[in-house]
Order: sequence, then C-alpha cells, then structure tokens
Amino acid sequence: MTEYLASYVQGEWWTPSSDARASEVRDASTGEVITRVSTDGLDLAGALEYGRTVGHRSLAALTFHQRAVLLKQFALALTARKDELYALSARTGATTSDSWVDIDGGIGVLFSYSGKGRRELPNSRVHVDGPVEPLSKDGSFLGRHVYTTLPGIAVQINAFNFPVWGSLEKLAPAFLAGMPTLVKPATPTGYVAEAMVRILVESGLLPEGSLQLVSGSVPDLFENLRLGDIVGFTGSASTAESLKAHAVVQTGGVRFTAETDSINASVLGTDAVEGTPEFDAYVRQLVTEMTTKAGQKCTAIRRAIVPENTADAVIAAVQARITTKTVLGDPRAEGVTMGPLASTTQRDEVLRQVGRLQDAGGRIVVGTTDAPEVRRIDGSTGPSPDGAFVSPVLLRFDDAQADAVHSIEAFGPVSSLVTYTSIDEAAALVARGGGSLVTSIATHDPLQAVELATRIAPFNGRMLLLDRDDARSSTGHGSPLPNLVHGGPGRAGGGEELGGIRAVLHHMQRTAVQGSPEMLTALTGVWHAGAASQSGGRHPFRKSLAELRIGDQIVSVSREVTLDDIETFARFTGDTFYAHMDEDAAAANPFFPGRVAHGYLLVSWAAGLFVDPEPGPVLANYGLENLRFLTPVSPGDTIRVELTAKQITPRETDEYGEVRWDAVIRNQGDEVVATYDVLTLVNKEPTPEAVPA
Amino acid sequence: MTEYLASYVQGEWWTPSSDARASEVRDASTGEVITRVSTDGLDLAGALEYGRTVGHRSLAALTFHQRAVLLKQFALALTARKDELYALSARTGATTSDSWVDIDGGIGVLFSYSGKGRRELPNSRVHVDGPVEPLSKDGSFLGRHVYTTLPGIAVQINAFNFPVWGSLEKLAPAFLAGMPTLVKPATPTGYVAEAMVRILVESGLLPEGSLQLVSGSVPDLFENLRLGDIVGFTGSASTAESLKAHAVVQTGGVRFTAETDSINASVLGTDAVEGTPEFDAYVRQLVTEMTTKAGQKCTAIRRAIVPENTADAVIAAVQARITTKTVLGDPRAEGVTMGPLASTTQRDEVLRQVGRLQDAGGRIVVGTTDAPEVRRIDGSTGPSPDGAFVSPVLLRFDDAQADAVHSIEAFGPVSSLVTYTSIDEAAALVARGGGSLVTSIATHDPLQAVELATRIAPFNGRMLLLDRDDARSSTGHGSPLPNLVHGGPGRAGGGEELGGIRAVLHHMQRTAVQGSPEMLTALTGVWHAGAASQSGGRHPFRKSLAELRIGDQIVSVSREVTLDDIETFARFTGDTFYAHMDEDAAAANPFFPGRVAHGYLLVSWAAGLFVDPEPGPVLANYGLENLRFLTPVSPGDTIRVELTAKQITPRETDEYGEVRWDAVIRNQGDEVVATYDVLTLVNKEPTPEAVPA
Repeated sequence: MTEYLASYVQGEWWTPSSDARASEVRDASTGEVITRVSTDGLDLAGALEYGRTVGHRSLAALTFHQRAVLLKQFALALTARKDELYALSARTGATTSDSWVDIDGGIGVLFSYSGKGRRELPNSRVHVDGPVEPLSKDGSFLGRHVYTTLPGIAVQINAFNFPVWGSLEKLAPAFLAGMPTLVKPATPTGYVAEAMVRILVESGLLPEGSLQLVSGSVPDLFENLRLGDIVGFTGSASTAESLKAHAVVQTGGVRFTAETDSINASVLGTDAVEGTPEFDAYVRQLVTEMTTKAGQKCTAIRRAIVPENTADAVIAAVQARITTKTVLGDPRAEGVTMGPLASTTQRDEVLRQVGRLQDAGGRIVVGTTDAPEVRRIDGSTGPSPDGAFVSPVLLRFDDAQADAVHSIEAFGPVSSLVTYTSIDEAAALVARGGGSLVTSIATHDPLQAVELATRIAPFNGRMLLLDRDDARSSTGHGSPLPNLVHGGPGRAGGGEELGGIRAVLHHMQRTAVQGSPEMLTALTGVWHAGAASQSGGRHPFRKSLAELRIGDQIVSVSREVTLDDIETFARFTGDTFYAHMDEDAAAANPFFPGRVAHGYLLVSWAAGLFVDPEPGPVLANYGLENLRFLTPVSPGDTIRVELTAKQITPRETDEYGEVRWDAVIRNQGDEVVATYDVLTLVNKEPTPEAVPA
Repeated sequence: MTEYLASYVQGEWWTPSSDARASEVRDASTGEVITRVSTDGLDLAGALEYGRTVGHRSLAALTFHQRAVLLKQFALALTARKDELYALSARTGATTSDSWVDIDGGIGVLFSYSGKGRRELPNSRVHVDGPVEPLSKDGSFLGRHVYTTLPGIAVQINAFNFPVWGSLEKLAPAFLAGMPTLVKPATPTGYVAEAMVRILVESGLLPEGSLQLVSGSVPDLFENLRLGDIVGFTGSASTAESLKAHAVVQTGGVRFTAETDSINASVLGTDAVEGTPEFDAYVRQLVTEMTTKAGQKCTAIRRAIVPENTADAVIAAVQARITTKTVLGDPRAEGVTMGPLASTTQRDEVLRQVGRLQDAGGRIVVGTTDAPEVRRIDGSTGPSPDGAFVSPVLLRFDDAQADAVHSIEAFGPVSSLVTYTSIDEAAALVARGGGSLVTSIATHDPLQAVELATRIAPFNGRMLLLDRDDARSSTGHGSPLPNLVHGGPGRAGGGEELGGIRAVLHHMQRTAVQGSPEMLTALTGVWHAGAASQSGGRHPFRKSLAELRIGDQIVSVSREVTLDDIETFARFTGDTFYAHMDEDAAAANPFFPGRVAHGYLLVSWAAGLFVDPEPGPVLANYGLENLRFLTPVSPGDTIRVELTAKQITPRETDEYGEVRWDAVIRNQGDEVVATYDVLTLVNKEPTPEAVPA
C-alpha cells in the first residue's frame, strides 16, 4: 500500500491511521500511483489555534528585518536541496523549465521579499503609512496611519499548477507581516509542496508555529476561522465564489483574497503587421503561453485579439512555431518541451471545455483534440492513454462577440483568436473578459498603446506593453513577479498578491491614530515634532546606535548670512541664478523680497552648524529627503538649525544602521526656512577610537 | 396632499405621478408630515447608465486638479446657502451644533479634498503608485503601478443621521477619482440631502451626469450594477450583509464598501483616576458622545471600559454632567442641547434594544427609559408623545463578558459601562466588539497607551489617544476627519472611507504595468530613465510650461573637484567632518577611499553646472527629494550632471506650476555619484522680459 502523504501541524509531522479514507495521486505522464492523501482525524481547529497563539508569539518576537533575514535563509536552504524538488516536479508533468518557474521562481520570491523587507520596512513591528496629518493649529493633536499585524492565521488554499511558487509567494508576505501560515496544497501536486515544507522544517530555521501544512481536504476550515484570519485562495472562480460566501467572510471580517484563472487577453496592434518585431514577439509569446506548463497557468493567454487583416498571418505563424518548437511528452524524456496536464481528470476537463468552445462557434485552426502521439520516458514515440496529454490547440471565432470566447476557460494549452477592426472594439473585447489577471499589448506605437492601456487598465491587474525595445528583456505575459501586483478585478478574483510591500500590508490592519506628538512617538517609534527632545548633553553624533535615543537633539548657534557670503557661494559653485545675484530681478520674482541666499548654501551651512567633525560612530551622510525651502533668507538674516534623531534602524547583518534626522532651519524671527530629513549611517556599538588622531 | 420629494436623474428633476405609493416623512420633534417619497416609475437603470456614459465622459475631460477646483466651488456654493440646510436640518431633530457637524462638516470635507487633490495628486488623470521597479538589467524593461478610474458609477446608500456630510464625504473622493455619483439618501432625512443636491444643481457647477439623486427606495439596484461600479454603504451591519451577498458583488466584481455602526469602546487608563485631567476628559467625551446627535452616530461610544476601582466615580461624574449640561427638547427651542431621535420608529427601536441590554444584565445607572419631559418649540416643558425623544442612558454590566454588551447596539443616547482589572483584559474586551470604527484610550502613561493601542489596533479603523496634552485640541472620539481613514474591520463593515487620497484610490483600479521606458513615459506622463530625451537646443530653464516637454534635458560640462575645493567648502560652511578633512580617518571609514568631497558640495556644484542664470520662466527651486549619494568623489575626480524634465504640473489657479527634474551626477568613469529630484516653480507662459537687465 502506498504511504500517506504527511501533514505538518502543531510542530509535528502527522499521518492518518492506516484505515483512513484517502485519495490517490498519480504520475501525470505514466499514471503510476505516487502517494495517497487524507486528513481523516487531523485536528484542524487545533492547528489553526496553534498558529494564532504559538506562531504569533514567535513571529511577534521578531522585527520586520529579522523576519526578512529568515526569508533569505529559507531561500538558501531550499536552494541547497532543490534537486529533490525538481525530481518530484517532473512527476507532475512539469518540464525542467516549467519546474524552474515553480521552484526557482518560488525561491526568488523569498529573496525578493527578504531584500524589500529590509530596504522598505523599518526594523520594528509597526509600519507607518503616509505623512503626519496636523489636526490642531497648536500642534498638540496629530493624526497618523499605522499598519499592525492581523492577530490571526494566514491560510493558503493553493492551486495544483505551482505547488512550490504558490506556497512561497503567499508565505513570504505573510511571514514578513508577522502572520503564521497554514498551507493547504492542491491534492494532485501536494507531494511537491510537502517536500518543500519538509526542507524548511528540517532546516531548523522556522520560528515555532510559523508554518504548518495540511495535506488533504479541509471541509470544515471556514467554521474554524474568525476575525483576524486571512484566506489566500488560488484556483477556479467558481470555488472562490462558494468559499467566499461563508458567513465568516461575509460578516465575520475574515479576509478572503482570491486569485482565479481568468480569460486573459493579448492584443496585437494595428501597426504590428507581419515582418515587424512586434508581430514576431507577439507570436512567440502566444506560443510560449500556450505550451509552458501545458497552458495550466491562471495568467495564460486565452484570447488572442488581432486586427482582422493580420489574423491569417498570426495563425500561420503560430502553426509554424508549434510545429518546429513543441515536443510533447514525458518531461523526463530527452528533448521534450511540453509535458502532460497534471492529471487525466484535468485532461478530460480541458477537452470538454474545448468541445464547448467548438459548439459555440470556435473552429480549431491549429492542433487537434485527438489523443496525441508523445515521446515516452524511454524515448519511444506513441500514444499514452494513461498520461494526461493534450496537444496545443488554437481556435478561431468568426464572431468576436460570442459569449463563450470571453467566458469559457479550457485550463490547458488552448487559446482562441478573435479579430477587431478598431481600437474601440479591441478595448471592448478585452473588457468582455469581466476582469483579467493580465493583458498584453504588442505595438510600437505609443499613442495606440496609451489609448488601449488606459481604457483596459481598470479591467486588469497587470498589463504588459510588448515592443521591439523590450521583447528580449520582457519577463513575459504569463509571469507574475514578486515586485508587481498579481491578481485582477472581477472574474480574476478581485484580490491582490505580491507587489512587494503592498502584499505585506494586506496582512495588516491600517488604523488611523490621533494623539499628542508624545503618544504618536511612543507608538510608532518615530519622533514627531512637538514630542520631548533631549539636547545639551553629549553631541548626538558621538553616540552609537546603542546609545542614541529618539529625540536626541542638537540646537545649533546662529550664523548671519551676508551678501558677501552669497556672492562667495555663487562664485564657488557657479550658481549665479538671478535670484541670488540681481536685486531688481530677484525683487520682481513673486517669491523673493530681493536677492536671497541659495538653498544649497543654507543646507550646506546647516551641516556645518550641526556636524561634530571628529571621527566617531557617524559614518556617512548617505542622503537627504523631503527638502522644502519655505522662507527666503535675505542678506543680514541669521539662520540656526535643529537636528533631532527621528528614526533609528539598526541593520541586522551589518555593524551599522541608519539614523534619520529631522532637520529644521529657522531664521532670526523663528520662521521656518527649510525642513528636511538627513539620512546617516551610524555604528551600532561605541568603537574604541579606531582612527589615529 | 403633501408634495413628493424630487429625485434628480439624467439631468432632470423627477417626481412620481400623483397616484404613486409613497412613504411619509415627519418632523422628529412634532410628528408633522414634511414630505412623501417614492420611486414609483423612476428609471433607475437609465440613471445608472447615464452616469456611466455622460457622467464619465464629462469627468474624464477633467484632470484631478480641475476636479479638485470644482470641489472647492461646490463648497463655496453650499456655504452661500447653508442657512436653508440648517433650517431643514432642525426638523430632523438636530441641534445647531449637530447640524454644524453635518453641514459645515460636509462642506469641510469638500474643502479638504480640494486641497489634498491639488497638493497630492498630479494634474492629470492617471495616478502613479510607488517607485519604478527595474525588471531587466539593461533598463529596457520596467515595472510601474498605476491607478486608473473605475469605468462605472459610484452609488451611495446613506444613513439617516448625517444627510449632508454622508453624501459629501462619499462624493468628494469619487468625484476627484473621476467617477460619477448617484446618491440614495435614507428616507427619514432625505429632504436635507435633496436640498443640498438642489443647491449644487442650481449652482450650474456640476459636470453633466456627475451627480444624481434618487429620493426613495431602490429595490432593483443591484440587478442593475456591473463590474466597474462601486457601492458605498453606510448603515446597519445586517443591511450591509444582505446587500453584499448579491451576485454582482460576490462574483461580478462590483466593489462594495460598508461603514456600519459598531460597538465602539472608550478605555480609561489605570492612571487616570478621579482628579486627573484624563479622568475629566474621559467623562466629558463620554457625555458628548452620548448626547451629540442624540447618540445616533456610528462612531458613538457604546462601551465605556474602566478600571474596577474608578467605575463609581465615572458613573457619578457622568450623572452630574448630564444633569447640569443636557437640555432635551425641540432643537428650535432656546437652550436645547439635545434633540429627539430621527423618528418615532427609531425611538421605539432604541428603547427595545435598551430592554434587551437590561435583560442581559445591564442596570440603568444614569437616566431612564420613561418618556421624558422635554422643552417644546414654544418654550414650554412637558411630555411630547409625537416627538422621538429618549433620555441619555448609561447602563452598567457587572459581567464584562456578557455577550450583549459587545454585540447589541442601541442607536441612540445609550452607552454601557464595564470594568477591567488588567490591560490584558481591557484589550480583550475591546476586541470582543468584533471590529470597531473607533476606540479611544484616556491615559497619560505612554507605556500603557502603547501596550493597549498595539493590541487593539487590528480591531479598529481609528484610535484616539486622549490625555492632558491633547484634551483641548482633540477633535473627539466620534468625529471622522477627511484626512483620516473612517471605517473598521469586521462588525464595522470592513470598509475604508476618507483618509485623504486613500479614499480616492478606492475608486480606482491599481494595475501593474510592464514595458519599455518609452511606453511607461507615454502612459504615465512621467519621464522614465531610458526614454527619449531632448538636449542641445534651448536651455530648458528658458522654457515656460507651455514650451517645456517631458524629456527636455541639459547635460552639463565636467568639472574637476580638487582638494583645495574641498577645503574651501569646509571653511566656508564650517562642515569639517573628518571624512573631508583627515585622510587617515577617512580611509579608515568603511565607505571612503580617503578624503572625499562633501555631498552638499556636489549638489551645490551640480546646480552651478545646470542652472541658466538669467531671469526667465523658472521662478524658484522650492525643494529637493530622494537624494542619495552612491559613489564617493575624491580629489581629482570630475563630475557632471544630467537634468531632465520628469513631470510637469501646471497649477489651475496660479500663473505657474511645478516642474520635477530628474538629476543624475556622474563621475569621469560614468559611475553614478548621486541621484535626486529637483523641484522648481515655472511660469506657465513665456513672459516678456519683466525684469530690467
């Protein structure tokens, strides 16, 4: 008897008792039984609660940056053992390049989130959103938006097509947000996800309770969810619909995000006639999307929308490319470029949908629904009735308005071609899909691209503008990327995944906070003007991160700006702009009373006024942000600067970190001349004077 | 027979025929019939389609800034005729200060969005979200996120309590986003919303089709909605639930945002004992929230959560304050501070809910459910059986865990008090509300505030931290503000309204776009590095906004930086930081090869290299953003700068606008030394030389 596939719950590997009801899982090419799955007797409620308690506690003990560092370590642990995953992946019907998308693609998401987490989030647990909102004239009452971690568990319900990537692309943002995850893979390929989770568990890197795996069905999942939990679903629109209807989502506040297969489109521009690089790129991309992963991608092109007069050329080119490039067979056989579908059930379902498309007016113009001859694992060629093989099929609809072409999905190597005669019509056809994950547009005409793109954007989660300039470097119509949002409106599920930190924030609650500067400083860890500051002691530039505190401040002496200073600066820099050099011209300017000091003079002097010059923990000023010049400085005015430690961000893997300083330059009348943030790198620890005097 | 209240659809005022079935609307204090409402015979489908077509076209013709300017003009038109609105508002039971919240508060939202729209959005139609995402090493393939206007109509389903504010707080962000609106007010107070819409229609300012009003019920609304439409609902959680269940929301992609009454809490800190400013502020706020608008606010405090040992003092202080401050009566009578509920139906419902709270263990400790004596419009005092009056009521629950106190809402001047013994318990009690619009915390102890706030934040859309520092300037627990998000998770509806531009974006679709720099520049109107640039002609500083084009560029000559320059700059500015002055100390720094030029020297010189000094269209450099120093510059290195027009933002109401320039400083080896954006103000039109030479 084949063994049961294990689950990993409450910190233990779990398998059902030997008499459990189970589903068999088979090799996609040969039909051989690989494993059996069952959740008979599994304590799902216990697993969820374990995540909410133990998992939450262990993640809450880590900052965003510490979690980000772990994501990179996960990626390295998986990389070290990825051969195991590739071997299993071949059994799902995936070619090596299909597996690369799933396995290396998934690992790439971890690397990407690790980097973004450290670059774009603070090294703390609360994320601040947007600027300070002043709520009172005297500055005693401010508003700020913060994101805090949802208090529940993130449950993944994944599709069968990308068992590794699908798990990791949801894990990375949840983990970074501080939410524990429970993965529920799709049964046909769950053994690949299980192997991935096993590698992570065996790495010893996982914070306790941060990742659990349930191999098999979870019929009572939703009864066990509650406010603060989030479900990330990938799969069919109809399943998403029935799950979402549950009361815990409808009224209980459980977040539900869906990314469903959609009727994606690819539009060929009217300029992109045969012989143009755009025509070639369009055909190449269409064939790639039909054959990669045997077309089992939520993002695949289902609708090729082409100008009436280019349709025949497109069909001929697709036919030619498939004939010369596509070798259907067992992915383990030499030279195979397209594998079977994930299961014979899927094969039968795809053929059924092709039949529906034919009934609705689709004529097959490339390929066939007959059982194909394939290259078998031993290199021989012939039929393979136990393998889930389907040939690539392109259908043509003479009626571009036929409902079927915009609503029926054959989730395999199947696309349909329709034609248009105006940009208006092309845009309307794209919208007929009712919301898509992605649409690509192949044109080298910016006007056409912009007109189409602005009209179809609200119906798409992603758009790819393909032309000769990016045809080589394009990552492709069908590839979600970690730094771009993935998900689309309507039929595509209405959810958003990935997109860098955007996806992290979907695992957090945005809350407006009102309070005094002191309280907002305490809550956010970011100094707010008006909160307590400490000045007069040791110069803050003499303090390492271990010693520096938010609110540490230097208030400089005043310095007078003379006309001679302005002229000296103009000569030295070459900046002889009339506002500094010509009294009459400056006075005629709507903003200046007469000649004024250069803004760059003011910030340069401010640095001279606040700097502590001797070697010490401050290593460098690496940048400056949000500089605004608010009051002009005339000859005879004096300026002084207040510099206050605003935010301290130690780096996890360096001996230093970042300090953001709030800088305010004022004049002799206390008017604010300029405000900005100074960005510095500062050592974490006080160092013995490393530098000879 | 009382007249029907009019609707405004398809550009016309509409009333039903005289035999239409209608509901009567009555004066809240006197019971007198004011008007009747009916939609019998109204073409709702036609109105929706009119918005989607005519309304969309007229709004799409305007930029964000042009729409923002109109919002201000709407605000001015309403201000000019607000007395009419105040007079009607009194009939709903609102006191003058209640009406101020509704009317002036609503007008304030228009002003706020007008300002934010012009400051925080570009003067175009597409909003760019987040930074450029490089997708290829050679820079030929980039990613960017854009927001585009949803193609449908925004339908408001409003609550009865704030007929003006409720309409305007939803209209402002929708209008700014470019979406037409259809307002469906609640029947009991719809005549105030009708008057408001009438003022706007009569102002002549409304773009055609941008605003419609349906007075009366809309039973077949959802059957007529489709992908691209958005519904903004305010009202009870149970109504939200039933509307949201419709297929167009569940699977059709119609956005549905709900802001429902919730069981909001106010927590008194353990430090805030009797005699502290926080205690006083807490009691004052509690009474205000009970009596303002007779407690008919989604944001009112329903649960007072106080330390066990302070409970009696709180109750006594609430009793005393209500006794001395609250005068119940017809809002048109002198001295009345609290009016009736909106209708006798509401009155009966509130008393029924109080009964349920009593049945569940709540004891009335302040007030009574007996029919109150009230001050009538003629100044006399006595019972008013036809008026919808209810006394303020505070209940006390001995069992803080009683379900009823966390789930039953009496939507009137009713709060319940429970006690806690630990911060843990207080946080858990707040969470028992299942998601709230707002929780306030009164404490002067930052540790206590932070501990409570971080734990309850995920259960709240807004939090107010109340203490002696902001008690006077606080805008109050119950007041949503245009610049802060309004809406909360779970029971509060799960939606977000307001929050400045955040709410505008809820009316747009975020789409990831991939393409070449050229195509992204064309789509966004923002220059992307790698797109075409034009240099060598007239210096771009000599061009007005009318002449300047995105991509206009100046490439400067090179200039060598000598050690003498560095020392001169150090002496002039006073910035003698060791990295510039001490070869050995600089070399010991991990980032520098030895002494290096000041960053401020580099940007000052860059200005000297790119500036065109003569008077002309460029008026001022008002700021600088995102400056990063990437490669240190040593003595003997040369630098040059490329300055490229990146974004052009003409101001609608000034003679000038903003130009954002992309600045890149490179060294002799083409390495990037620094990148930043220079912000300038530039005249719209070429001016005759206004300035004497």
